[in-house]
Amino acid sequence: MKYIIGLDIGGTKIAAAIADESGKTLTTINTPTQAKKGGDEVSAQIVSIIGELLKSTRVNQKDLKNIVLGVPGQIAKSKGLIIIAPNIKGWENYPLQAKIQKHYPNVPIIIENDANCAAMGELYFGSEKEFKNIVFLTISTGVGGGIVVDKKLYSGANTMAGEIGHMPLNLTNDNDYKCGCGRFGCFEAYASGVNMAKRATKRITELGAAKDEYGKITLELAESNKSKISSIVLSQAAKQNDKFAIDIIKENAYYIGIGCVNIINVLDPEAIIIGGGVSNIGDLLFDEIRKTVKEHTSMVSEVKTEIIPATLGSDAGLLGTIAIGLSE
Amino acid sequence: MKYIIGLDIGGTKIAAAIADESGKTLTTINTPTQAKKGGDEVSAQIVSIIGELLKSTRVNQKDLKNIVLGVPGQIAKSKGLIIIAPNIKGWENYPLQAKIQKHYPNVPIIIENDANCAAMGELYFGSEKEFKNIVFLTISTGVGGGIVVDKKLYSGANTMAGEIGHMPLNLTNDNDYKCGCGRFGCFEAYASGVNMAKRATKRITELGAAKDEYGKITLELAESNKSKISSIVLSQAAKQNDKFAIDIIKENAYYIGIGCVNIINVLDPEAIIIGGGVSNIGDLLFDEIRKTVKEHTSMVSEVKTEIIPATLGSDAGLLGTIAIGLSE
Repeated sequence: MKYIIGLDIGGTKIAAAIADESGKTLTTINTPTQAKKGGDEVSAQIVSIIGELLKSTRVNQKDLKNIVLGVPGQIAKSKGLIIIAPNIKGWENYPLQAKIQKHYPNVPIIIENDANCAAMGELYFGSEKEFKNIVFLTISTGVGGGIVVDKKLYSGANTMAGEIGHMPLNLTNDNDYKCGCGRFGCFEAYASGVNMAKRATKRITELGAAKDEYGKITLELAESNKSKISSIVLSQAAKQNDKFAIDIIKENAYYIGIGCVNIINVLDPEAIIIGGGVSNIGDLLFDEIRKTVKEHTSMVSEVKTEIIPATLGSDAGLLGTIAIGLSE
Repeated sequence: MKYIIGLDIGGTKIAAAIADESGKTLTTINTPTQAKKGGDEVSAQIVSIIGELLKSTRVNQKDLKNIVLGVPGQIAKSKGLIIIAPNIKGWENYPLQAKIQKHYPNVPIIIENDANCAAMGELYFGSEKEFKNIVFLTISTGVGGGIVVDKKLYSGANTMAGEIGHMPLNLTNDNDYKCGCGRFGCFEAYASGVNMAKRATKRITELGAAKDEYGKITLELAESNKSKISSIVLSQAAKQNDKFAIDIIKENAYYIGIGCVNIINVLDPEAIIIGGGVSNIGDLLFDEIRKTVKEHTSMVSEVKTEIIPATLGSDAGLLGTIAIGLSE
């Protein structure tokens, strides 16, 4: 029997697991990331966690199929390099693979971007259906994605595939839709949770006291502080039937839907699985996304791509590292 | 030795070839399509062409690896069905595969959309480089595309992948950008040759006689008939340094470039190969597309996707059927 070790390395915590070839997890470890102490310190943490997992399960190093490291940043996979991971100090052009390989010279070490890991996690362990081709979207502070073709990650020519947050959604020069990347009109600039909240804050300010029922609950939940309006506040207000919050969420769902239409017209996946904080809004959001997709893909055949919520939440990344280990 | 028969079935002509397993063509046939006589007549033509190819090369039916039929329309590949082929009468929900299979019961019959065929043709026979992952765009009357992943066609869940012409490029309700599919803001509504010509006709009408040097050559080449402005006229006028034609072409290249950015952010292919009538404009168009792509993909790493002109012209479809036969 061979074993897989997976680590989901976040800016605040590291989740790790060792699993057997059937995908069954033997044991897990959760520990805070020493992100501020610098990249080498985090590398040392990784080595020590791998050691602990092996020790506690009495699995021998030579029985490892591979070790998969999910990292919160951009990578050059073939070089085993982290190009940039903004939340971990010093992980810039950082040769993570080589650093870990030194300690486990005979075990294949795979590094992968965290959104890609989550995509594989949702495909292998999250969905009840046996999908082969999916796109995973994570919509929270930003918008990220991962593409799975034939049950394997599709990384593109430059391991840049899945930079879906920076698809142009609109031809605009409107500063309200200036993206963090410096360009205008990116999918992320329309659809992310932060941008939904920003739009809500701006709209409610413009409304003033003119229509005080409209948005009243949103404001109350934000403790009368417009800048405290978040996707969570909007979600709660919508559940209490606040028309303002419902309108903002529907508008956001429309933007997410148009992004999905883009993806469907290029890739026609079996499903688009949507996770991240914004997805927790639930049916109100998903119904409107599905409606938008239906209206904007009026080609000859009916589009069959399912739009479904992610189910694994914050476990998607860790389970994804195991899924990648299994699939390699 | 096994052999492959490929037919590129167009609305006006059928091009057919038989090739050996090395991809070398033994003989070809070109004949007008009996498109108006109806679908069954075209099917009979196909059967007769296959018979002729076998007879003239003395290849035995049992030595055929497969027969690949490229068709000008939308297909349901797994069912061997043509959903719709607007230029061939009666090819609506038409079981083409079964009709041909009847005559060659032991030979695998593969049907494929013509843009997908062209994508494979350009990858296998057109490009000097050994690409594995490309997107092929054909920009003429409409905008079509084909996606190749790992040297095989990627068809998506519903064989709808590559409907790139109907990606939303802009959030608009402007009637100038209403697409043939009924929606607004599709890639095709911005980038196709027909739409470029329409834009030129409208602009030159708006200009009136106010700036008569600007657009003068374009008008002359269109025999002073604004509605005769086409992508060919614009291309010729641009070559004679007509600033108006250059501006219109650059604007079109910008739209094509944004479409490419969309594709790159999702798929990150090694290359986007662009064919179709509009691509014949050449460097003026391609330089501006590349500039747009560079400006609008300002992520951390440099985008490496090459934007290159197709090289096979109208042979791409036929050569693509052979490429598909080889790759299956």
